[in-house]
Amino acid sequence: MLQAGFDVGGTKIAVGIVDDTSMAIVARRSASFPTGAPYQETVALMAAMVKDMAGELHISSDGVGSIGIAVPGTIDPNCERVLHAHNLQFHDVPLKAAMQAQFPNTPLYLANDANAAALAELHAGAFIGVKTAILLTLGTGIGGGIILNGRMFNGGMGNGVELGHMVLAHGGPICTCGTRGCVETLCTATWLVQQGRRSIIDYPKALIYTQTNGDMNKVTAKLVLDCAQKGDAIARDIFDRYVDQLGSAIVSCIHILDPEIIALGGGVSRAGDFLFEPVRKNVQKKCFYNTYAAILPAHLGNDAGIIGAAMLYRNEV
Amino acid sequence: MLQAGFDVGGTKIAVGIVDDTSMAIVARRSASFPTGAPYQETVALMAAMVKDMAGELHISSDGVGSIGIAVPGTIDPNCERVLHAHNLQFHDVPLKAAMQAQFPNTPLYLANDANAAALAELHAGAFIGVKTAILLTLGTGIGGGIILNGRMFNGGMGNGVELGHMVLAHGGPICTCGTRGCVETLCTATWLVQQGRRSIIDYPKALIYTQTNGDMNKVTAKLVLDCAQKGDAIARDIFDRYVDQLGSAIVSCIHILDPEIIALGGGVSRAGDFLFEPVRKNVQKKCFYNTYAAILPAHLGNDAGIIGAAMLYRNEV
Repeated sequence: MLQAGFDVGGTKIAVGIVDDTSMAIVARRSASFPTGAPYQETVALMAAMVKDMAGELHISSDGVGSIGIAVPGTIDPNCERVLHAHNLQFHDVPLKAAMQAQFPNTPLYLANDANAAALAELHAGAFIGVKTAILLTLGTGIGGGIILNGRMFNGGMGNGVELGHMVLAHGGPICTCGTRGCVETLCTATWLVQQGRRSIIDYPKALIYTQTNGDMNKVTAKLVLDCAQKGDAIARDIFDRYVDQLGSAIVSCIHILDPEIIALGGGVSRAGDFLFEPVRKNVQKKCFYNTYAAILPAHLGNDAGIIGAAMLYRNEV
Repeated sequence: MLQAGFDVGGTKIAVGIVDDTSMAIVARRSASFPTGAPYQETVALMAAMVKDMAGELHISSDGVGSIGIAVPGTIDPNCERVLHAHNLQFHDVPLKAAMQAQFPNTPLYLANDANAAALAELHAGAFIGVKTAILLTLGTGIGGGIILNGRMFNGGMGNGVELGHMVLAHGGPICTCGTRGCVETLCTATWLVQQGRRSIIDYPKALIYTQTNGDMNKVTAKLVLDCAQKGDAIARDIFDRYVDQLGSAIVSCIHILDPEIIALGGGVSRAGDFLFEPVRKNVQKKCFYNTYAAILPAHLGNDAGIIGAAMLYRNEV
């Protein structure tokens, strides 16, 4: 059966039609997100994208089994409205109903994009066959999704999960949310960039400085990680602190949910074994249990949103 | 139906027979825990206690529908052996099999005592009718249990839950477990006592000093809370920091599980509204959601272990 999945982002709308046997994306489209336009315009664009792909595949729109939409924001507990998606400038938008009007006969599902990514890993990635798992995406922010009892978990009250806003360092740096010491203040690519920039001020002889000629704007998370891997002491110190912080965040997840797998995705996770090995050692040092979650890379990269959205129909009881 | 429930502690074994309609404890016994004796002796004592109560109730031992045992320690994922219960000096003890030999026809269940306490709240206390809930007991340590999908949650891998060892203050005080900044280092009665004692050194004119004549051994958590309630600035400062720390721990729980209720039990929770009101305000300031868990006192006090153990049979699928 063919299922459509949307990954709606602040810059781009990506959509694919997924064959839910092979999990292959058999057609795909992308378009710029019409920033600032009324949501109805976005919905019309999205509907056209589905119809266009259906045409390519020589099926009618009704040949699409379901349409799932993953959005970077908060969804209401009934999974019908986008309460807040700042990057989309969507506030209390009845996205499901609006899209349903375009496809009256097609089951429609709406979810947070981080939850959808976890669902994608469940059906096509690192979590296949797993009952309890956590996905942490380490990007400019922290995304996170939870699989409980073999299903996507949307919070006990339907608020979703906000793993990036668990408190990791009480009294620590102020988060964008206003609270101090959230996971998001210490485990993101943003933190690595920040520390790399600081090092330009504090250590003008270190590798991060020489590689950027002291230009703050040239500091990326990848550069900091690369300098650490090359053995530069200052970059290594930043990296070691990052590992220790991420290790603590993972330990918190283990001590509350005791999942079988914790998968790390997002830009920072591309550092591979250089990151995963020390993170595993750090967690082992801090964890209460002898056997606990495997810490693995997420399998699905940029397609996680599309595949997860296309699999939302499976999450219904 | 009558169910037996054991609350096995390092100083005392308490057991009750619970009428599972009224949830009343219709018979109870307690005995000193035979510290240092072989576990077989403990089991013989426990069996005698059940038989004694059955005699009082004029039923045969087979008239007891099930026997549940709650233990302050780690249980194996099959819920048959006590892996570690330091207060009992039990290490890898086959407690279920040993007790089963005494009651071959009676269903037997083994659980961690904090998990059992959460189960007790589900069937007879603060969590009745609730699907997702967290119990935090604030005593010398932190106990915790989770209700997920209307059942006691024993961790995705069967390791139980260790809410006291979520990391709340990365790089903070060293915990008994060796990790820094666990919830247990900042949210216990022990922390209040410690800060009260420090204040004797630092503030010899403050109320905690005058109330104890500067005697460290007279500082209790209750005394610190009482001095704060009387308006003493130093005690109030300790209390405010405690509320802020506990608030952060609760926020972490909300952002990962989004439960309907978070119940607080244990000695510190007896401070009542004086504690609950500022904790609720603190959580409101930090929480991402508009509607989230009610923060309430646990209903069941000392009997939570007995009742929870007696309800373990209900947790089976």
